[in-house]
Amino acid sequence: MSNKTKEDINVIAKELARNYRGYEDFDERHCYKLPNLKAVLDTMKDIRRLMFPGFFGPENPKFNSLDNFAGSILARIYEDMVNQVQIALNYETENCPKLQEKSHEIVMDFITKMPEIQTKLMKDVQAMMDGDPAADSHEGIIFSYPGLYAIFVYRIAHELYKAKVPFIPRMMSEEAHSRTGIDINPGATIGEYFMIDHGTGIVIGETAQIGNHVKIYQGVTVGALSTAKGQGLKGVKRHPTIEDNVVLYANTTVLGGETVIGHNSVIGGNSFITNSIPPYTQVLISLPEHKYRKLKK
Amino acid sequence: MSNKTKEDINVIAKELARNYRGYEDFDERHCYKLPNLKAVLDTMKDIRRLMFPGFFGPENPKFNSLDNFAGSILARIYEDMVNQVQIALNYETENCPKLQEKSHEIVMDFITKMPEIQTKLMKDVQAMMDGDPAADSHEGIIFSYPGLYAIFVYRIAHELYKAKVPFIPRMMSEEAHSRTGIDINPGATIGEYFMIDHGTGIVIGETAQIGNHVKIYQGVTVGALSTAKGQGLKGVKRHPTIEDNVVLYANTTVLGGETVIGHNSVIGGNSFITNSIPPYTQVLISLPEHKYRKLKK
Amino acid sequence: MSNKTKEDINVIAKELARNYRGYEDFDERHCYKLPNLKAVLDTMKDIRRLMFPGFFGPENPKFNSLDNFAGSILARIYEDMVNQVQIALNYETENCPKLQEKSHEIVMDFITKMPEIQTKLMKDVQAMMDGDPAADSHEGIIFSYPGLYAIFVYRIAHELYKAKVPFIPRMMSEEAHSRTGIDINPGATIGEYFMIDHGTGIVIGETAQIGNHVKIYQGVTVGALSTAKGQGLKGVKRHPTIEDNVVLYANTTVLGGETVIGHNSVIGGNSFITNSIPPYTQVLISLPEHKYRKLKK
Repeated sequence: MSNKTKEDINVIAKELARNYRGYEDFDERHCYKLPNLKAVLDTMKDIRRLMFPGFFGPENPKFNSLDNFAGSILARIYEDMVNQVQIALNYETENCPKLQEKSHEIVMDFITKMPEIQTKLMKDVQAMMDGDPAADSHEGIIFSYPGLYAIFVYRIAHELYKAKVPFIPRMMSEEAHSRTGIDINPGATIGEYFMIDHGTGIVIGETAQIGNHVKIYQGVTVGALSTAKGQGLKGVKRHPTIEDNVVLYANTTVLGGETVIGHNSVIGGNSFITNSIPPYTQVLISLPEHKYRKLKK
Repeated sequence: MSNKTKEDINVIAKELARNYRGYEDFDERHCYKLPNLKAVLDTMKDIRRLMFPGFFGPENPKFNSLDNFAGSILARIYEDMVNQVQIALNYETENCPKLQEKSHEIVMDFITKMPEIQTKLMKDVQAMMDGDPAADSHEGIIFSYPGLYAIFVYRIAHELYKAKVPFIPRMMSEEAHSRTGIDINPGATIGEYFMIDHGTGIVIGETAQIGNHVKIYQGVTVGALSTAKGQGLKGVKRHPTIEDNVVLYANTTVLGGETVIGHNSVIGGNSFITNSIPPYTQVLISLPEHKYRKLKK
Repeated sequence: MSNKTKEDINVIAKELARNYRGYEDFDERHCYKLPNLKAVLDTMKDIRRLMFPGFFGPENPKFNSLDNFAGSILARIYEDMVNQVQIALNYETENCPKLQEKSHEIVMDFITKMPEIQTKLMKDVQAMMDGDPAADSHEGIIFSYPGLYAIFVYRIAHELYKAKVPFIPRMMSEEAHSRTGIDINPGATIGEYFMIDHGTGIVIGETAQIGNHVKIYQGVTVGALSTAKGQGLKGVKRHPTIEDNVVLYANTTVLGGETVIGHNSVIGGNSFITNSIPPYTQVLISLPEHKYRKLKK
């Protein structure tokens, strides 16, 4: 690199430094550093190994060693999460308190739920097996189904969302969104035996409420009617309620915080729903009128 | 970590171990271990280097060394696949037979098809070049086009699906789904000169049949009419047939195992088709009625 | 591996070598080697660290060291890009000229724009904060929002597209497409304060023109009416113009090079638009007719 180039780069670096000073996102106001995205995602990998022993990670435990499988992974999850949660909590404070105790409590509460979440995830696996004719085995679902991965991450992130941990729940859910095309806000409430098939393009908003035994296919939006008010809508229930045993077929849109899809209803593909639907109702859109024209050979 | 924390973690670990014991997915019934996801995906990377020498991987072969390029990569693919295929085959058996010979046969049969698949992929590259005004070069397509990546993985996974290898085809196809948003079941049948553009949200089901010179755009579903019967539909043809020279524009849905899109037909965007279309037909939806309202300035 | 297997693999390798010889994509015609995908994507990671100091990468700079943050990263970006841009430029030439000087000029011009792009990206962050009720902080958006990531990569790749660098802009934009499901062609023109929410399935074509303060939701296509002419459409404006302050809600399709969405218009979800819309217009599709049927309990 020539001296001229070095000088030019120096000028650009100085200009960038002036830029940085203009945003409080980068300033000294904050007590501590930012959480580390890679550390958070590594912990999520550890949690996945814990949920499905033998399927992910380098180990392939002999099945008779299952009794000793969880301990060391849990200890690592605890240590790494206490660290990152503390950073996240501290970042938003002004007086730089020591939040180690609060972080410990949040993380112990979180890992205490691991067995319960593991049980829920095995129910989700069962729902996918029952609902998908292309599914061959539980193992194939655990290894490969994007719907299961998205639900796994949601169930983890949702606990941290409820504990009001900043940043980390969304870091997790957006990793799942990136990997699967399924965008479930960690704030959503979702019951047991949840099935997603294909999944790409699904959006489930922050205040959505979804019951048990619900099936959702690719391209479904469970969203808000309008977000024109932006931050003015913070905390308002703006996403629908989907009751038990509902099926939402591909590319259907359900909008609005007061919209309720009654239990045991089946909503056909490409529907666009902004009002409530009673229980036990099948909804189908009238096929759009198609025009046909003979092409010349 | 305090002793109290250690003890608490121990209790949770024991509870998880009890959970694991409740699912045969994790039990000692199985003769061997599970296939390794990372090993399978690493082999897929090797196969990609083999298909497109010089484009992927660390090496950048001098072009005059092309004669020696394939040998060592093929040997590694062989060794790694024999290993993983044997694990996958063994896993599903009850008496723990040695399946090395069967695994060898499947893998040799598979790698014998590599030149033929390589030729097919170069036809797919050509189809994308011809069909996309934004395409600048074969090289750009090989490096970057998600449609080509999805087709590459499909053509590989489909061979293993036909050979009835458990787990591995879907591990491969879901990696492509994750990376591209294009979900092609390894069981689908797809002809030559296949073009996908943009691709996100495409779903092509397990029993779909697609001819030669077909073009498919983002958001297209070639799917089942209903999956309410779940595993009861196993093996039934439940996805459409798309004949030669058909174009399916963006976000079109074609459903049902008896639905045939006749050759040389062009299906406009956002169509929703559940009946067969004769050959040489252009289909356009009537634009949905739009309501217009003047906004105040 | 048995000798028989070695011989069989050798035969396949020879057949592949014959294949390679049949495509000029792999031949000796080219002066130099191909660009390296990993190197390009690593540089993109460095640029992201530069745009958002402290958020990505291993370092977590003390905020009082911000003045020195940019220099060494910029120097590395310069060196790596000069290398890859030169390879890309050389690859397409016939007489193997030394293009180091041209590569230097392109890259210096590019990195000189870094402060300006950084400022634009912080405006995009602000637009997402203002427009999304679920957003909690700038930091959360920078860490996790796929819309911001897609715009970041677009703003980088667009500069290299304008400089007519082969291969590299699309390598970058397809990485963002893969990660986010948002497919913005590097050739598109996009103004300031651009907001994308959710994002999966968005397609913005090469010749699209998008103004300031535009919001786009998941599944929106800003695309071409027909690509039947393939390469015959090269360079023609075939994608729409979206003027300032427009909102395109989820799954809306806007097609055609002469289509203009006038400023301050709001296009409701699932619209399908192929003609121009005047300024200050709200467009809503009439809800598709839905048929309701009572299901038996």
